[in-house]
Amino acid sequence: MISQNPVFIPGPTNMPEVLRKSCDMPTLDHRSAAFAGILHPALEGVKKVLKTTSAEVFVFPSTGTGGWETALTNTLSPGDTVLVGRNGMFSHRWIDMCERHGLDVIVLDTAWGQGLPVDRYGEVLAQDTEHRIKAVLATHNETATGVVSDIAGLRAAMDASDHPALLLVDGVSSIGSMNFEMDAWGVDIAVTGSQKGFMLPAGLAIVGVSQRALGAMATAKLPRTFFDLRDMQKGYAVNGYPYTPPVGLLNGLKLACDMLLEEGLENVFARHRRIADGVRAAVAAWGLELCAERPEWQSDTVSAVRTPEGFDAGEIVTHAAEVYDMAFGVGMGEVAGKVFRIGHLGMLTEAQALCGLATVEMCMVDLGLDIQLGSGVAAAQGVYRHGTRQQAMAAE
Amino acid sequence: MISQNPVFIPGPTNMPEVLRKSCDMPTLDHRSAAFAGILHPALEGVKKVLKTTSAEVFVFPSTGTGGWETALTNTLSPGDTVLVGRNGMFSHRWIDMCERHGLDVIVLDTAWGQGLPVDRYGEVLAQDTEHRIKAVLATHNETATGVVSDIAGLRAAMDASDHPALLLVDGVSSIGSMNFEMDAWGVDIAVTGSQKGFMLPAGLAIVGVSQRALGAMATAKLPRTFFDLRDMQKGYAVNGYPYTPPVGLLNGLKLACDMLLEEGLENVFARHRRIADGVRAAVAAWGLELCAERPEWQSDTVSAVRTPEGFDAGEIVTHAAEVYDMAFGVGMGEVAGKVFRIGHLGMLTEAQALCGLATVEMCMVDLGLDIQLGSGVAAAQGVYRHGTRQQAMAAE
Amino acid sequence: MISQNPVFIPGPTNMPEVLRKSCDMPTLDHRSAAFAGILHPALEGVKKVLKTTSAEVFVFPSTGTGGWETALTNTLSPGDTVLVGRNGMFSHRWIDMCERHGLDVIVLDTAWGQGLPVDRYGEVLAQDTEHRIKAVLATHNETATGVVSDIAGLRAAMDASDHPALLLVDGVSSIGSMNFEMDAWGVDIAVTGSQKGFMLPAGLAIVGVSQRALGAMATAKLPRTFFDLRDMQKGYAVNGYPYTPPVGLLNGLKLACDMLLEEGLENVFARHRRIADGVRAAVAAWGLELCAERPEWQSDTVSAVRTPEGFDAGEIVTHAAEVYDMAFGVGMGEVAGKVFRIGHLGMLTEAQALCGLATVEMCMVDLGLDIQLGSGVAAAQGVYRHGTRQQAMAAE
Amino acid sequence: MISQNPVFIPGPTNMPEVLRKSCDMPTLDHRSAAFAGILHPALEGVKKVLKTTSAEVFVFPSTGTGGWETALTNTLSPGDTVLVGRNGMFSHRWIDMCERHGLDVIVLDTAWGQGLPVDRYGEVLAQDTEHRIKAVLATHNETATGVVSDIAGLRAAMDASDHPALLLVDGVSSIGSMNFEMDAWGVDIAVTGSQKGFMLPAGLAIVGVSQRALGAMATAKLPRTFFDLRDMQKGYAVNGYPYTPPVGLLNGLKLACDMLLEEGLENVFARHRRIADGVRAAVAAWGLELCAERPEWQSDTVSAVRTPEGFDAGEIVTHAAEVYDMAFGVGMGEVAGKVFRIGHLGMLTEAQALCGLATVEMCMVDLGLDIQLGSGVAAAQGVYRHGTRQQAMAAE
Repeated sequence: MISQNPVFIPGPTNMPEVLRKSCDMPTLDHRSAAFAGILHPALEGVKKVLKTTSAEVFVFPSTGTGGWETALTNTLSPGDTVLVGRNGMFSHRWIDMCERHGLDVIVLDTAWGQGLPVDRYGEVLAQDTEHRIKAVLATHNETATGVVSDIAGLRAAMDASDHPALLLVDGVSSIGSMNFEMDAWGVDIAVTGSQKGFMLPAGLAIVGVSQRALGAMATAKLPRTFFDLRDMQKGYAVNGYPYTPPVGLLNGLKLACDMLLEEGLENVFARHRRIADGVRAAVAAWGLELCAERPEWQSDTVSAVRTPEGFDAGEIVTHAAEVYDMAFGVGMGEVAGKVFRIGHLGMLTEAQALCGLATVEMCMVDLGLDIQLGSGVAAAQGVYRHGTRQQAMAAE
Repeated sequence: MISQNPVFIPGPTNMPEVLRKSCDMPTLDHRSAAFAGILHPALEGVKKVLKTTSAEVFVFPSTGTGGWETALTNTLSPGDTVLVGRNGMFSHRWIDMCERHGLDVIVLDTAWGQGLPVDRYGEVLAQDTEHRIKAVLATHNETATGVVSDIAGLRAAMDASDHPALLLVDGVSSIGSMNFEMDAWGVDIAVTGSQKGFMLPAGLAIVGVSQRALGAMATAKLPRTFFDLRDMQKGYAVNGYPYTPPVGLLNGLKLACDMLLEEGLENVFARHRRIADGVRAAVAAWGLELCAERPEWQSDTVSAVRTPEGFDAGEIVTHAAEVYDMAFGVGMGEVAGKVFRIGHLGMLTEAQALCGLATVEMCMVDLGLDIQLGSGVAAAQGVYRHGTRQQAMAAE
Repeated sequence: MISQNPVFIPGPTNMPEVLRKSCDMPTLDHRSAAFAGILHPALEGVKKVLKTTSAEVFVFPSTGTGGWETALTNTLSPGDTVLVGRNGMFSHRWIDMCERHGLDVIVLDTAWGQGLPVDRYGEVLAQDTEHRIKAVLATHNETATGVVSDIAGLRAAMDASDHPALLLVDGVSSIGSMNFEMDAWGVDIAVTGSQKGFMLPAGLAIVGVSQRALGAMATAKLPRTFFDLRDMQKGYAVNGYPYTPPVGLLNGLKLACDMLLEEGLENVFARHRRIADGVRAAVAAWGLELCAERPEWQSDTVSAVRTPEGFDAGEIVTHAAEVYDMAFGVGMGEVAGKVFRIGHLGMLTEAQALCGLATVEMCMVDLGLDIQLGSGVAAAQGVYRHGTRQQAMAAE
Repeated sequence: MISQNPVFIPGPTNMPEVLRKSCDMPTLDHRSAAFAGILHPALEGVKKVLKTTSAEVFVFPSTGTGGWETALTNTLSPGDTVLVGRNGMFSHRWIDMCERHGLDVIVLDTAWGQGLPVDRYGEVLAQDTEHRIKAVLATHNETATGVVSDIAGLRAAMDASDHPALLLVDGVSSIGSMNFEMDAWGVDIAVTGSQKGFMLPAGLAIVGVSQRALGAMATAKLPRTFFDLRDMQKGYAVNGYPYTPPVGLLNGLKLACDMLLEEGLENVFARHRRIADGVRAAVAAWGLELCAERPEWQSDTVSAVRTPEGFDAGEIVTHAAEVYDMAFGVGMGEVAGKVFRIGHLGMLTEAQALCGLATVEMCMVDLGLDIQLGSGVAAAQGVYRHGTRQQAMAAE
């Protein structure tokens, strides 16, 4: 039986009713004019969410991982050198993909819990006077650790040495939920998926591509067909796709963008910040610490919470699922067993956030952690409560 | 925009996904064999929920109010005497209906917050040696005050004087959520609706009718057509309806009964008790009192919470709706402004209950009540938490 | 398993996807401001569909039969005289309801297949110089025979003798599909349901009430509560209902009105006329006759087709359901076995109409009628085809 | 506005209501036990539909094109030789993909309208005594021309020369609708998608892989990550995915397999044959010819219909869409403008098929072709009609 509880995994998110309904379409001919009326507004909407006017947007029936592959195969050739930071499981996986595609990968390893090392990126780039490095890769929001990194700073580091490498950014768990400025930050390829900030089912890789990156397609020799941007471009030009598009999801994407833009991106980001602040207040009240070591690295979409030494954090996730029918995220890779994760991205109400905190609180007490029932909830309530109606109205 | 928060009104309840989908059917010919495959299992399912083997069940496209009217018009004639207790707004309304249908109503007024006065019913019946009283009416669960009454006791009181009056019971907010024994209690007509214990949209009056009550149809002279049980009986006999049936809702009713019976009625009742216990623990932790004056009168489907003198309880409901997008129930009639109501019937998870308590807690603090944030939540968590997995498993 | 074929019963109709989705709502507090935003636009929309500016609209969780009862009980008292024509099963049933409510009914019997006898209505009214007749009842579109009657003519007949009786009209299978002018025709109460022209699931009685009819409420003595317009009026005034409203269906009604009005009522009527013309062409091509004896009586929402003497028309309906999984309507009452009915109201495409005709054609051939396969379809295609694109565009 | 008409494109197909509902799920944690209960039954179901007990099934969030890429990249290395027949647009595209992945492609060009040249495949393989050819590719059902090819014969041709090449088959528009015997035919990789025989939305690449083909993974050097079967295998072993799976579509796939298997695959194929026979009868009645030159090449899932010389077949598709709101398929590549296509795969009723034929008939007459209205419909009715009920029952 399907749970009535919200999920607290860091994506797929809880889906607003209206988005679910927009995806659940009867079959519509994808070669019809009606499809054009879905496709182009969806692409335009994503551009606004990416804060770009110059890039083009491409949407594949795939996932964020397919988006990563799109970014690599359309811009690089076997043997090309790329520079990548690793501070969690998702940056690790992108690195693995680079290696499997025969790229020469310079890895900047960083403690899991810290932001990507902008300074070290800068140093390596400065030394690369021959411009062997063709692309710089960065994970904006490392979902495994709840750590956000400084992409604007990374761009500044690249500019400092006037390095011509492309900047490819994984924004899977940030775009649409936290500030992301494709044009201002000079991002060449931004990758995301449908099931995070866009609040849709999984099934779409969403990729923004700068004109410079589009230019690289001509010389990129990594083999590709399914993820080939050139076929996609040709398709879009005639309101179509190179293969059968996922019409319902695209219809949902169109509406999701409308919703985000109508609310206002800054309001969307502030909403995520507010929900995250409540979660962080709860963590502090429990006497626990976030995996993210410093405030500026704390993600507003997912919080990885460290549990005491000797305690298996995964037990909380298992217990919550089995006993309370609620889904949280486990720790992965280096932080497996050390953290559990509370996803708080997408359209989550304060009340929903509180029920997640109340439930995880019960789990921790059930499992013997020295936590006061209600303590985290109370701390979050302190953040979430609006005060009197007059105060609430004034605050809007 | 549609809220993602659960509702805490005392019906309509939150609807399980699977029930919503079962109601949302494309058009099906209500004169087809397929309809018979929906109608009869639905009626049989309701009989089991009512714990009756001898009564017949009738379902009208209407609401509980239509069920009341069905009960009266099919068994009584203008000028007939009925005996009714009044201890809240819903018993009051049924009395009003009796009067508008020209019945002679003996009202037993009772404090709002107390159960129906079984003793006084008994006294009046004992005095009615001529059996002028044709029907005894009782509201099993008074939704306005969160008070449950003793129907088995009422039957005993009737039996004590061997009184032949019919026993007509409003079980709108109890049936399917709290124990209701139509046969064992000798209930002649049991009335409920689709939007409470059956967890469906509003739109069905559901009526169980004993053979004795069916016998009264022949002489009952109150005019009726839409609610005439005789037409309904004729329709059912040929797998049809006297008019267009609400096929989708009936399909939902069939599945709702299956769900309740598969879970086991006693388990369903225990689940409601458990959720209600958590709510009651929260109320106590807040230092507030229930409208229901004694534990045996406390309803497991709705809690009416008294607020301090001089405070308008309705403000909490307005504040919760406007500021936190969450629905609670206001006080009605004599207790308007004095209580707010937390509905906790239907399929409500512990996590959902906690988010309701956490939200109302914020409202009360926002509005200046002397409540500790987290206090009610912690008390409810104490009730809801399952202990270790071993304990949780053992408890099942 | 749910059929993929459209239905051809004369209601409930095939439901447009968007209307089904608008009805399938999660629970929304019916005492909230959000409900007001559904209720009032729905009521206003119905007024426009009824072509009235002066009447008030009331919507009950019920069906058209409940609408009939609303019309009678709110305006009449036991023993009142009413004048009613009978030319089919549905007018017959309304007459039966009148009798069961203790009214004194003057019945004008008319051949099933003819329109209501406006002249005879006029004669009886002219003779009623003492104005004993309190209400004139008429079925605008007799669903059982596919016969539409002249309500404007009936009003003229009433006006001719300056008779003050109320004019109560059953427009269940006409309103929203064929022209209905509540104000221009001086209709005092217009009754319909959700499942016909409004293309929604069954479950709503929709009633338009003139100011004169509202005035009759004060003196009408027929007992009523569920269908009492006074309670409904009080509820609407505070954005509520006297009992739990069917929120999803009301939301659907709001959207259905928007759809009808956006298309334009005259366009909606022309669309129904066009579909009906195709059906009638098919019937002629089969060498069969409509139950409606004259063209002016032919309904644009349902066609009752007479089959040859000695043939049981019901066999076609059974055969279509069992062998081809398609629903048509049987004959009822006097025309049982003599006609089968093709419903063509609501949102039916030409292609859907053709598949109904093609299927019934196969049924008739299967059952031995002397029908040429494809003949009816070809005749309907002749009506439905648009000609070249230029012609099609020019025709719009 | 969404059309109420069925679609007649050769996929995506019309979706049964129950499958749409099974796909439209709220978010479910893809790392939960509940997901395992969806994934494994779906994979097992596909195996049965593929008629394989030894192969493994893999499902990607992608489309059939992604399935092609999966087949190539997991078994081949740059420079490998493959042997492929081309007899339509889809075989052409797979060849193009081979070339873009650096394979050495031997193309067997065949007239568009003919089946793949099994003899010529055999000749080339016989000559390849050094076994340079690593894989033989074949399109089972060429969707562009409505031509089915003889895969069993191709396997026999391979066996005749004892050639060890892998046999990779595109069954996108045949699997689940026409007989496909993965084990009996010795198919090494079978590729399909969700939106054809499985009657689901587009969004899944479904790939069956023989143990031999799985063995080739170790040495295959084409770069891959998203489509890497090894990652998928590892994921499935722990009830997971290497990235976020499309849970709703997988849930739909599980149910689609259940439906196909419950109906019985041979019954499903016979149903498609019957619907296709009706379409072919209509084409003959119109005096037109299929693109498929011989009966044994006529596909049961899509019919490409040749229009007279000098007439642009695409006009029919445009006209049907614009004037009658119905979708058919255009001709592609060599047969662009020469054929229009009627898709008749998935769950299509006879009545639906007839409405497609009736509509395309109107289009052809509108556009001046010398076609008799009703002629094709009558011919199809002759195929579809069941005779008397006794005959219909006996036929089952």
